[in-house]
Amino acid sequence: MSLTVVGSLAFDAVETPFGKRDRMLGGAATHFALAASFFDQVHVVGPVGDDFGDEEMAILSTRGTNTGDVERVEGGKTFFWAGRYSANLNERETLDTQLNVFETFQPKLSQESRDADVLFLANIVPDLQYDVLEQCTNPRFVAMDSMNLWIDIARESLEKVIARVDCLILNDEELEQLTDAPNVVSAAKQVLDMGPSIVVAKQGKYGAALFTREDHFWIPAFPLGTVVDPTGAGDTFAGGFVGYVACHGYEGINSDMLRRAMAYGTALASYNVEEFGTERVARLDASEISPRVAELRSITQFEDRPITLRG
Amino acid sequence: MSLTVVGSLAFDAVETPFGKRDRMLGGAATHFALAASFFDQVHVVGPVGDDFGDEEMAILSTRGTNTGDVERVEGGKTFFWAGRYSANLNERETLDTQLNVFETFQPKLSQESRDADVLFLANIVPDLQYDVLEQCTNPRFVAMDSMNLWIDIARESLEKVIARVDCLILNDEELEQLTDAPNVVSAAKQVLDMGPSIVVAKQGKYGAALFTREDHFWIPAFPLGTVVDPTGAGDTFAGGFVGYVACHGYEGINSDMLRRAMAYGTALASYNVEEFGTERVARLDASEISPRVAELRSITQFEDRPITLRG
Repeated sequence: MSLTVVGSLAFDAVETPFGKRDRMLGGAATHFALAASFFDQVHVVGPVGDDFGDEEMAILSTRGTNTGDVERVEGGKTFFWAGRYSANLNERETLDTQLNVFETFQPKLSQESRDADVLFLANIVPDLQYDVLEQCTNPRFVAMDSMNLWIDIARESLEKVIARVDCLILNDEELEQLTDAPNVVSAAKQVLDMGPSIVVAKQGKYGAALFTREDHFWIPAFPLGTVVDPTGAGDTFAGGFVGYVACHGYEGINSDMLRRAMAYGTALASYNVEEFGTERVARLDASEISPRVAELRSITQFEDRPITLRG
Repeated sequence: MSLTVVGSLAFDAVETPFGKRDRMLGGAATHFALAASFFDQVHVVGPVGDDFGDEEMAILSTRGTNTGDVERVEGGKTFFWAGRYSANLNERETLDTQLNVFETFQPKLSQESRDADVLFLANIVPDLQYDVLEQCTNPRFVAMDSMNLWIDIARESLEKVIARVDCLILNDEELEQLTDAPNVVSAAKQVLDMGPSIVVAKQGKYGAALFTREDHFWIPAFPLGTVVDPTGAGDTFAGGFVGYVACHGYEGINSDMLRRAMAYGTALASYNVEEFGTERVARLDASEISPRVAELRSITQFEDRPITLRG
């Protein structure tokens, strides 16, 4: 089995209350691949410039991730994003966005990437997401991310993509914006009528929720005393979630498996935010993941017990 | 066993995207008592004006709640609050606050209220909370709420009260403000050093978290497709939580029991927000509560399963 991700490879400049980085490896496809590669062979598709060096490529290739479809644009510069987080990390301000090589990006997937069993369309222009869907032969499971910008300026294209995927992974507020629903429960219900059979609502520091037509499931973020940099947490979560689904191809997609996928995504994301950018996950050992899944289980379980209430 | 709550009885004017009420029964002690009375005999202590009628008193007395310590101030008017919620109910704007009889309120507890096994200090001036503590003989369990205003203008008095209670129930952002911590996990840890052995962080529509020195526990809000009015949700949660603790006196306070208390508080709060003010909980039947507790359990549980990760 294998998993293809199409999305951004980037350099980020980030400032948080815990410090700053002027130029660190980032991008949705990068964070996704680092997490998903714990579960499956990953193929990364995305453009970089001349400034994307061997060091960055080495991190991207962690655990055998295939970078053959990373397109190096001669004379181009890698996508760049700069942002600053508020004191409690709840809000972030974008200081600079330079699309660079992304401006003219047209995904060209190798046969290997097209044949992948599972596909993740990270947050890029919806028309490009659609184009990738058209190139792929017959993926068993397709998940996608998006953002408020595309809901604002490319809603029609976005809805065309959403109609064709199995799973939409989006921030809760974006789900509400997409559906004009007043809360995430009714928003998710509406998205399930748009095509996907699975909706994952990312709730930032509060965790994530999973919705299917038969089930829903809520998991908190892994509790940390110190969060250094939330950049890439959502993509790392997606990498853990989709990666877990990808490596369970033969057992089929069911509620129990999806719930565990939510837990693995949550565990991975918690490591991502412990340090800047990819710093922590790049050196994460596989043995560190399941203890956090077990901890997530222990902090959410309770046993009910019959009780006589006053009438 | 019995449970005393000291706090506001109020009339609220509320506007939400689902409608408005110009004058409805409200107040922390009211919402708390309606929920807690499912679990234990409640004594309410708080002031009202001449405008607080038989109808309001009847709702307050639901399930035998003792209103003997509701102090009627001759010629006075009941506390009044007016507010408007944003489209997604995330934010609320206070349009008017009239302290009225609350301005000169000095809690005077009857012997019965003083002797209560469990005490809840709803959100009032910290010095009055302290005064109530002094009046009580020897409660087995004391919980309290507060708000950002008192952290701003009466921090010293507030910390004096916090040092003497078993359990602080506060919004997550207020916990962060109180401790100057960047997140709720480190904030709760700091509060556990200030005296309380239990900290409950209310996270609004995202649920609540429980912290003790040995344990922590996270529970989502009960998922609802329609939330009509969040007013009083926190106090209803507190009523369910503290009420559950109160009726389990003999089994002692332990993690399993506290986790169930969180679930009952969450279930009660979910009914509160389904309609305006006390409208839904006032006619809630005891038999409706445990199904929501069971549902909360089912939407948060997952089984881990060994998996071989790629190294």
